[in-house]
Amino acid sequence: MARVVLGMLGFGTVGTGVVRLLSDRYQSLVLKKVAVRDTSKERRVAAPCAVTDDPFAVVDDPEIEVVIEVMGGEQPALELITRAIERRKHIVTANKELLAKHGPDLFALARKRGVAICFEASVAGGIPLIATMHKGLEANKISSLCGILNGTTNFILSSMEDRGEAFADALKKAQDLGFAEADPTADIEGYDVAYKLSILTALGFGRFARTDNIARSGITKVDPKDFKTANEFGYRIKLLGKAVNQGNGLCVRVEPTLVPLTHPLAAVSGSNNGIVVHGDAVGQIMMIGPGAGEMPTASAVVGDVVNLSTALQLPDFASYFQAEIEDGWAELAAEGDWQCPYYLRMVVRDHPGVIGQIGTIFGRHNLSISSIVQRPVSETEKNASIIIITHTGKSGDMTAALNEISSCEFLENLAACMPIYEARHA
Amino acid sequence: MARVVLGMLGFGTVGTGVVRLLSDRYQSLVLKKVAVRDTSKERRVAAPCAVTDDPFAVVDDPEIEVVIEVMGGEQPALELITRAIERRKHIVTANKELLAKHGPDLFALARKRGVAICFEASVAGGIPLIATMHKGLEANKISSLCGILNGTTNFILSSMEDRGEAFADALKKAQDLGFAEADPTADIEGYDVAYKLSILTALGFGRFARTDNIARSGITKVDPKDFKTANEFGYRIKLLGKAVNQGNGLCVRVEPTLVPLTHPLAAVSGSNNGIVVHGDAVGQIMMIGPGAGEMPTASAVVGDVVNLSTALQLPDFASYFQAEIEDGWAELAAEGDWQCPYYLRMVVRDHPGVIGQIGTIFGRHNLSISSIVQRPVSETEKNASIIIITHTGKSGDMTAALNEISSCEFLENLAACMPIYEARHA
Repeated sequence: MARVVLGMLGFGTVGTGVVRLLSDRYQSLVLKKVAVRDTSKERRVAAPCAVTDDPFAVVDDPEIEVVIEVMGGEQPALELITRAIERRKHIVTANKELLAKHGPDLFALARKRGVAICFEASVAGGIPLIATMHKGLEANKISSLCGILNGTTNFILSSMEDRGEAFADALKKAQDLGFAEADPTADIEGYDVAYKLSILTALGFGRFARTDNIARSGITKVDPKDFKTANEFGYRIKLLGKAVNQGNGLCVRVEPTLVPLTHPLAAVSGSNNGIVVHGDAVGQIMMIGPGAGEMPTASAVVGDVVNLSTALQLPDFASYFQAEIEDGWAELAAEGDWQCPYYLRMVVRDHPGVIGQIGTIFGRHNLSISSIVQRPVSETEKNASIIIITHTGKSGDMTAALNEISSCEFLENLAACMPIYEARHA
Repeated sequence: MARVVLGMLGFGTVGTGVVRLLSDRYQSLVLKKVAVRDTSKERRVAAPCAVTDDPFAVVDDPEIEVVIEVMGGEQPALELITRAIERRKHIVTANKELLAKHGPDLFALARKRGVAICFEASVAGGIPLIATMHKGLEANKISSLCGILNGTTNFILSSMEDRGEAFADALKKAQDLGFAEADPTADIEGYDVAYKLSILTALGFGRFARTDNIARSGITKVDPKDFKTANEFGYRIKLLGKAVNQGNGLCVRVEPTLVPLTHPLAAVSGSNNGIVVHGDAVGQIMMIGPGAGEMPTASAVVGDVVNLSTALQLPDFASYFQAEIEDGWAELAAEGDWQCPYYLRMVVRDHPGVIGQIGTIFGRHNLSISSIVQRPVSETEKNASIIIITHTGKSGDMTAALNEISSCEFLENLAACMPIYEARHA
């Protein structure tokens, strides 16, 4: 491999892994400068080069050909990467938020300047999903990308299921163990998954999805009771990200979803990620692996750096090397157009005719019931639990039906309504 | 994409899929000639070009730049591909047997002539494993590749487990359904997996494994009784291919293996394939998908053709594009050096002291027992079943221990001895 000079922005967990891998394995990839916020901070590995608190010293250095961005966050990353691209430097980034918010502009600018943006590390950590989509599934039209894209929430849901813990307790434990941040909002409210989905949409369907347009619900309202009930019906609750072309437009959603226990996605436990890709020729491909962590993410960053550095010597390489992403944002289907089967649990007053009324309302909204079970909430209470699994219906129809049921006199509590994952979506 | 002229050898199932995908999607990839054995045979799709029964008309055509080989088998594929490489044509092949038997020579010749051999379709059908290993896990040292690499045997084992069928009945059913060939030897005796492992060894460890040196046992001797027993202990029986660097050398093996029910490999059912790759930086990555079939395999072939065709215009592209494989054959560890936990089931005369004797023999051969259960074979018989799960031990020690036990007076029947899959291997 020819000598390539690198600069790095950020020297946290992922940056540490990058330094380890580079110095261990690649003599011709020369890290010249690392920019950090605080140069006095002790690091777990020594930088093999100058450490500066001036990030412009990295992006303005004429000798640096590739800028590795592992600082994260929207700013100052946006300003720095924009400037680096203007100066015709190639970018390797792990920054999902930056790409999800500014991907179209950054890729347009990179095209103009003839440089590449590599982003394997920005989605699903160590899983080489970008390489797989870009090179391995080249001959396919992608129809869907669905998966578990956030290890923190997967860990919390696993805890809730295994030990019957309430959400708040499981979150607290995840924080104590270092699996969740002090401010867990980005994870538990599904923003992190939405950023990743925006990038996956670009990869699978040609344009980034605007995260504001992604239907998003996190895991804070998942009731521990539903893990057991879902299990009885053959499902497990996972927070899924979905980018699916259903024929009536592109649906991009983040939501707790019931996954069949027999599907390998159900076996993705703890902090792992798992993604199912559906291509028209290949059918379903699934990848499972570590979604975060120092060395897995560094594996993705350094893989990009090595592939880029090998290709750099080729004339006109960017057009060959760069994943094809078009200008502008993806057009998404209306939120109500999502189609899938649903799981519902509601607490009702135990009157005669309740099931008939529910069935009538569902029928009026084109929803057909696959199975329905009524049972006492407890031995002493007069209320009953009704659990319903529907056939595939539209999310808009389900919203309308639930609105109508909410105003019915028999309803005590609409305890849960979650979509069910279908293999056809992936 | 620039115009690239292609020729194809073979027009069976995979060739049909290739023609479908190419004509559907890629106008600049021009299929000029297809060579078949019998030009009078009716095809499910019309060839978009001349069909000839002279394969040399393809490999000798000076206009053809890329030869797609989907005829399979050792000869005449070897002669034809050798000649095509001599004439500086790039090769895209789905032929695992050819690569496993002649990979070192073919890759050496390709290097000499400056052409690429692409072989995504030769292992795990539609799963883009080669792209993942070559581009996605670039920064990793691979320590193991383990997986379910043969859909036919996976289907048969699933049938045996689900319905308690004997091997012969499950095979018959697979044949009736078209999932197994009239002569099923290559699948059920593990040759097909050994070919794929030889290629995976080249990809992960730099050199092809000679298939004669691969420890191989098929599924013909799997007893239906063991599915249930394995299940009780938390395992499922799968035919695994393994290429593992255990520190004491490279072990390459094909054998029925117990996989923990909680591991996603256990959820790979029917005719799917699943592979676990272990890299030092990334940890474990797993891929699941269709291991065969017209369109999945065509997806891999055409993916190779497209990537190759895009790169062809680059000067010195082969050195950038080609997976790095060294000359010669991989050096493998001795068969007895494999290390893993074992599952055993034996039928013994129900004497006092039998368990003690077994324990003593195992101890003498450095094998330590993790759990042992004795129970009556049936209510009427005087014999007992003993099921043993060992800690990790060497296969050579296990062979020696079993030899000793075989000569013991208490042994009626050594019913089963199978390795257990450990995540550390993958």
